[in-house]
Formats: sequence, structure tokens, C-alpha cells
Amino acid sequence: MSSQLHPVALPLPARTADHDVLRLFTDRWSGRALSGAAVAPEELARLFEAARWAPSGGNGQPWRFVHARRGSPAFARILESLMPQNRVWAERAGALVAVVSAVHLPDGRPRPAHAFDAGAAWMSLALQGASMGLVVHAMGGFDRAAAAAAIELPEGWDLHVIVAVGRPGDVRDLPPALQAREAPSARKPVAEIAFADRFPA
Amino acid sequence: MSSQLHPVALPLPARTADHDVLRLFTDRWSGRALSGAAVAPEELARLFEAARWAPSGGNGQPWRFVHARRGSPAFARILESLMPQNRVWAERAGALVAVVSAVHLPDGRPRPAHAFDAGAAWMSLALQGASMGLVVHAMGGFDRAAAAAAIELPEGWDLHVIVAVGRPGDVRDLPPALQAREAPSARKPVAEIAFADRFPA
Repeated sequence: MSSQLHPVALPLPARTADHDVLRLFTDRWSGRALSGAAVAPEELARLFEAARWAPSGGNGQPWRFVHARRGSPAFARILESLMPQNRVWAERAGALVAVVSAVHLPDGRPRPAHAFDAGAAWMSLALQGASMGLVVHAMGGFDRAAAAAAIELPEGWDLHVIVAVGRPGDVRDLPPALQAREAPSARKPVAEIAFADRFPA
Repeated sequence: MSSQLHPVALPLPARTADHDVLRLFTDRWSGRALSGAAVAPEELARLFEAARWAPSGGNGQPWRFVHARRGSPAFARILESLMPQNRVWAERAGALVAVVSAVHLPDGRPRPAHAFDAGAAWMSLALQGASMGLVVHAMGGFDRAAAAAAIELPEGWDLHVIVAVGRPGDVRDLPPALQAREAPSARKPVAEIAFADRFPA
């Protein structure tokens, strides 16, 4: 899948799983080289369809997605809320998607797991997109007030990430510093994130 | 996969995707009928391997997993922290896994997306487990102080869910009220969770 995502050959360090898992997990990564081509509404619907089936506390499904297709006024507003280092590559996305979740339950009590649940839905969205050969890259670097205003987000909803969704592009269109980073990132080994019986002292 | 997960036939309402997605997303669900059989350390490692490759803010990988295998003192302690309505079925899990994340960055500043990122890792863990035919069911219903004490969780880490991991069992071993609920749950349609350009008023 990596070669499909990046038609311009880069020496991508292949990710090696230490334990047998679906290729989907290691093949998915957060590229920045985008072509500027459109993403169809039906393609976006498939991403939200995957997200939809995530589990959540009490099946409350606190996640919501606001999407703006390239060329729309909403796309321009959301793009403007991004930090410049994200704007420089995300401007070639086919769509920008804000991932938000409800802070409260319908009865007004806090919904403690809303962010955790939204993260689960986001992961499904990202995996589905990767399986379709799309670049799906979440950004935390944006002006939160500007982004919330851009999508007219009411009180009571948390904005977690802005996701760039697009078609793979030419790595040489990226600024040099980002060209050098255009490769799947590494991870801590399982031994550093999973522990038997107790948290390590 | 549903029939594999539930050797005792129940009239499981098949989930229908409204938009084409990987079967993995619709086939995964949170069952409670567990056999009590063991889950091998290598099987657990495969779940954490999937989680490991999730994306996170600045690739900070704030997630950690504390796992306890059935029969261990840690399993008994974690089980005791669950609400009775979870304990009644989770006692037949092969392992219990606490999903936690770091509240702060190494420099002491808050890590705003730690729960969201942990949710992403949890989703990968759940999907990998479903692909292996395991029941992987996250619970929010537990005594947080007791669960944190059970795994000796230090300050600075949030405990999100306790996950029961196990082999599918006989639905008739569940209490009658849970037998009736032992089926994949429904979800809101995409039209109710995804919106173009702005959040609906």
C-alpha cells in the first residue's frame, strides 16, 4: 500500500510488526504529499460509515464530523485556522474534516469518555481511508477558536482534530523540510507500552 | 465472523453498512458471552501491536496497557473493581486490560489529546482482536479508584476503560437480561453524525 500512496518513489522504511497483525495497521500512516484532487462525497461517506460503527460508552456515539470539500468557503475558513506549517500542505487536501464530540450527556451530566470514544471513531475513519488509498492525516495544530468559528460549532462540543483527506501527490511539491519527513514514523515497542499485572514503578 | 464469535446460534441482526466499508468495522461488536478459556500472552501481544501503530499528537504515543491474565491476583483485583453488572460476565474473560494515557507531556505541560489518542489505540486493539475471533469488550463501569489501585497506577495517568478479552462462550451462561442483549448494537446513520460545511444549528 505504501507504493500506492506515494507514486513518487521515496526510500520508505518499511514498518515491521513484531507480532502478527493485519497489514492495515502498519500500512496506514500520516502522509502530507497531496495532489489537490477532489474527494467525492461518497468517498467521504465511506469514511464516516467506518467511524459510525465504533464502540462508545453506553453506545452514546458522541462523535460528529464536519466536512468541507476543497474549493468551498468552509474549506477556506477551516484551512485558515490551521497553523502555517499545516496549511502549507493541507491546502492540497480534497476535504478537511473536523472531529468533534459532545461534552455532556443529554441529561446534562458530563460525558467522561467523549474524547476517548471520538478517538476510536477517528481511528476507524483513518483505517478505512488508508484501505481506499487516501491520505488521511489528523492535525492538532490549529487555532481552536478560529476552527470552531469556521464550522459554527456550538457550546458543549469539543473540537479534537482537523483531518486532511486527499489523494496522494508528488513529494517534491512539499517544502524541503517536509519532504525529508515524508515517511512512515516509528513507534515504541510493545514492551514499552504494555505491562503485566501492574503499571511499572 | 458473527457465527464464529457465537457458536450458540442467536438470531443476530446482521449489520448493514449504508456505504461500502471493510467488513472488519461492521463485524466487530462487544459481546459478553465468554468461555473462561485462557488468552495466550502472544495473543495479547498481537492486540498491543495493533494499538501501537495508531497515530497520536506529535507521535507522542500516550497510551499504555496493563493486562492481567485469568487466574492471576491482578485479574482478581481488577475484576473486583468492576461494577457488579460487568463482573457477572467479565469474570469469564481470559484477560482484563486497563487502557490508560499520560495526562502530561514530558515537560509537564498538559497533553490535550491524550484521551483521544488513547481511544484511537483502543480501536485498533479492538479491531485486531475481532479479526482473531476474540471477544474484546471495553467497560466504563468500574470504581476508578479501586481499578487504579489494582494496577498500581501512579499520578499523571488517566484510566479510560477496562477491556475484557476472551474466547466466545455460551450465551446461555449469561443472566437472562444479558442473554437478550447479546447481539450487535445499532448506530445512528451517517446523516446524523456527519455534516457539510457547518455544524447544524
